[in-house]
Amino acid sequence: MEFSVKVIGRVHSPLRDRAMAPKQGEEGSPPALLVFDPGVRDALSSIKVGDRLLLFTWLDRAERDVLRVHPRDDRTQPLHGVFSTRSPDRPNPIGLHRVTVVSIPDALRLQVRDLEALDQTPIIDVKATLAGLSE
Amino acid sequence: MEFSVKVIGRVHSPLRDRAMAPKQGEEGSPPALLVFDPGVRDALSSIKVGDRLLLFTWLDRAERDVLRVHPRDDRTQPLHGVFSTRSPDRPNPIGLHRVTVVSIPDALRLQVRDLEALDQTPIIDVKATLAGLSE
Repeated sequence: MEFSVKVIGRVHSPLRDRAMAPKQGEEGSPPALLVFDPGVRDALSSIKVGDRLLLFTWLDRAERDVLRVHPRDDRTQPLHGVFSTRSPDRPNPIGLHRVTVVSIPDALRLQVRDLEALDQTPIIDVKATLAGLSE
Repeated sequence: MEFSVKVIGRVHSPLRDRAMAPKQGEEGSPPALLVFDPGVRDALSSIKVGDRLLLFTWLDRAERDVLRVHPRDDRTQPLHGVFSTRSPDRPNPIGLHRVTVVSIPDALRLQVRDLEALDQTPIIDVKATLAGLSE
């Protein structure tokens, strides 16, 4: 059984390929711009500068038939089931990123920091973080 | 543009409808069983009892055309854009749940606690939590 996930925006970032990208957002990510489709304008309306958000992306350059990986691409480590890792390669390549809003150039664009996603990565959801919870 | 998200398992829970469900997993959720499809067996192979995992679901009883909500269904609060909330109603109704593995009855089943998802909710991904990061 399958569901259809809609692309609601795109990441604009200087990161062009996986070799350039840090493994996690806080490991040296450059600033990025999130550009949303006009259809989701109202869903963005309460976001403020300084907000910490969860950004969900669709990692369209990942491999969907990989079930086991070497964690962090370190071949000295044994193979792990992907569900015990943060590997982008997995059956549904959903990316989860914690970002902070740096500026809001207009109603459809958010500048954020700490985002390791590649340029043109599709955005599929945004959620509030839950205070005090480590997700 | 759209992508196809595959259902990789189902939640089994005594929670049958949204009126019964707590707003967040730690607000009184009953134990739940995650039942996975045989095709993802290898992806589950490194999960151990006690692991804290991020569970991604597809909230198939949510409304996808809702862009603004009263937070926590409290009508005394002003309408918020859904991307500043954890409402299940949103363009792509992805659920994010932090769960702890209580037991592993067999290679395709995990018993977990702190899950507020409804019975039969489709599972779409599982990830490791990142130590020390509040997502």
